[in-house]
Amino acid sequence: MAEPFLVAPDPDDPALTSEVEGIDHTGAAVRTRVPVERPLTLYLNGQEIVTMMTIGDRPDCLAVGYLLNQGMLARGDTITGIDHDPELDVVVVRTPERTNFEEKLRRKTLTSGCAQGTAFGDLLERFETVRLDPEAELRTSWLYALSRRINTTPSLYLTAGAIHGCVLCEANRPLVYMEDVGRHNAIDKIAGWMHLNGVSSAGKLFYTTGRLTSEMVIKCVQMEIPILVSRSGFTAWGVELARQAGLTLVGRAKGKRFLCLAGAGRLRFDADPDETVSDGPSRKGAREEE
Amino acid sequence: MAEPFLVAPDPDDPALTSEVEGIDHTGAAVRTRVPVERPLTLYLNGQEIVTMMTIGDRPDCLAVGYLLNQGMLARGDTITGIDHDPELDVVVVRTPERTNFEEKLRRKTLTSGCAQGTAFGDLLERFETVRLDPEAELRTSWLYALSRRINTTPSLYLTAGAIHGCVLCEANRPLVYMEDVGRHNAIDKIAGWMHLNGVSSAGKLFYTTGRLTSEMVIKCVQMEIPILVSRSGFTAWGVELARQAGLTLVGRAKGKRFLCLAGAGRLRFDADPDETVSDGPSRKGAREEE
Repeated sequence: MAEPFLVAPDPDDPALTSEVEGIDHTGAAVRTRVPVERPLTLYLNGQEIVTMMTIGDRPDCLAVGYLLNQGMLARGDTITGIDHDPELDVVVVRTPERTNFEEKLRRKTLTSGCAQGTAFGDLLERFETVRLDPEAELRTSWLYALSRRINTTPSLYLTAGAIHGCVLCEANRPLVYMEDVGRHNAIDKIAGWMHLNGVSSAGKLFYTTGRLTSEMVIKCVQMEIPILVSRSGFTAWGVELARQAGLTLVGRAKGKRFLCLAGAGRLRFDADPDETVSDGPSRKGAREEE
Repeated sequence: MAEPFLVAPDPDDPALTSEVEGIDHTGAAVRTRVPVERPLTLYLNGQEIVTMMTIGDRPDCLAVGYLLNQGMLARGDTITGIDHDPELDVVVVRTPERTNFEEKLRRKTLTSGCAQGTAFGDLLERFETVRLDPEAELRTSWLYALSRRINTTPSLYLTAGAIHGCVLCEANRPLVYMEDVGRHNAIDKIAGWMHLNGVSSAGKLFYTTGRLTSEMVIKCVQMEIPILVSRSGFTAWGVELARQAGLTLVGRAKGKRFLCLAGAGRLRFDADPDETVSDGPSRKGAREEE
C-alpha cells in the first residue's frame, strides 16, 4: 500500500470544476467538466502586486509562493497575516514592516513610473548565489515509480483536463501534488506550502507536467531543489540556466523514456528501461493538454 | 496540391533552435534540438510596457499584436515606426502622439504607483462591444482538413518540441502559422501580422494548440474572429466568455473527435466522423507538449 500524499488534488471539490453542456463531433449533446479559472489579486501590505488567473484553491500558499519565487519576499521575512477575501478575489500578505522589495518598488516608481520589471534582475542575482546539493541523486527506479503514481492518482486533470500539475517528491514518494490552470501557480503554491509548513528542500525533487522554460528553472533553483523532472520539453535558455546552477534537468519523461540535458551526474540507472511498465491511462489519448 | 501558407514556420532557421547534448534513458549520449527562448522588452513610445519571453522571430508583429490585444493600441491608431534592436532585445512601437493608454497609465501611475493592471478592465469593456459575424460557419470537413494540414506541416514543434502554434485560417485553408514558446505570443504575432498587412477578420477562423482560457477567448474576440478551435481543453471562464461574446468554441479536437461548448449554431456537419483519417504523426507520442 503506497503512503498517502501530504497534499493531494481534490477532484470532487465542487468549487474547482464546473459542468457545462455542449455537443460532440457527432452532433450529440454532451455534458463535461472543465476547471474553474478566476482572477486573484495579490497585495503585499498596501502594494498591489499582480492579478493571477487561478483555479482558486490554497490562495495563502499561492500568494506566499509567488512573492518568494519572485524575490519580493525573502525566506527570512516574518509574515504576520494572510487575509483572503473570496468575494473580492483578493489576497493580502502582511509583514511587520515594509519589505525591501516595497522600498525598491517605491523608489523605482517615483523615478520611472513602471516598476514591475525590476524583480527580474534581482531574481537572476539571487539565482547566481544558490548552491544546489551536489550529493542529491535521482534513481531511474524512483523516476518511473513517481511518474506512474502521479499519473494514476485521481486529479482535476483526469476529471476536467486543461490544467497543470506540480509535485514535490522525496525519493520515490510524491508528497505534495498541486494543480492549477497556470503552471507557474502550481509551482508557486508548492513553494508557499513549503514555507508555511517549514518543510525544507533537503532530499526533495520536483516533478511538473509543464515545459522546462527559463522561468520554471529559476523557480526551482530559488526553491533550492536540485532535481527537476517534466513530461514536457525544454527551451534552450532553460537548459543553459540549469547548467549554470548545477540543476539536474530531465524532460520528455514518458513511460520509460526521458532525456537529461543538465546535471546528469546525479542520475543512477538502477532500473531496466526495457521492462514493460504502464504510465497509467491518465495523460494519454484525447485529453492530453498542451 | 495544397495552396502554400502566407506565413509558415521556418524550422531550419538556425536562430530559432539550438542543438544541445545530453543523455537518454539508457544512458547513451544524444544530441537534440530545443527552441530558443529570449527576453524582448516592449516600449510604446517612451513607455516601458512589458518584457516577454519569446522565440524571437517577427518582433514587429509580436509588438503590435501585444499592444492591440491588450487594448493599449487602438485599431485606428497610426504607427509611425517599429524599431527592433536585436542586441538590446528591445522593440519600440512609435505613434505620432501619446496614445490614450499612455495618458491613462500616466494618470494611474501618478496616483497609485502600480499601473499595469489597468488594462484588464478596459479589455473587458471593449470585449462587450464586439459583434462577431453570426453568418460565419465551421464545416467539420474544414476542421478535419485544417488539423491534418497543420499537424503535418514542418514546424519548430516537430523539430524541437516545447512550443505552441497558432494558425489563422480561411475555410479549409491555413493561411498564417506562427509559433512561439509563449502561447499568447503566437496569437499576438498573428494579430500584429493582420494589422500590419491590412488583413481583415472577415471569413477567418483561428486554430491554436493551447488551452481555451479566458485570455485566449478575449484575444480572439478582440481580433473579431468568430470561431476558435483547439486541440486542448477548456476552462469554465473561457466557455462563459465565449458564450457571452457569441464565439464558437471548439476544443479537444484530435483526429475526428471534438467538443463544442459555445456557439454550436455555426457548426455544419458535412463530414463522416467515422471515416478513418490520420492526424499525421506530428502531435502524437513522446513529443506531446503540455
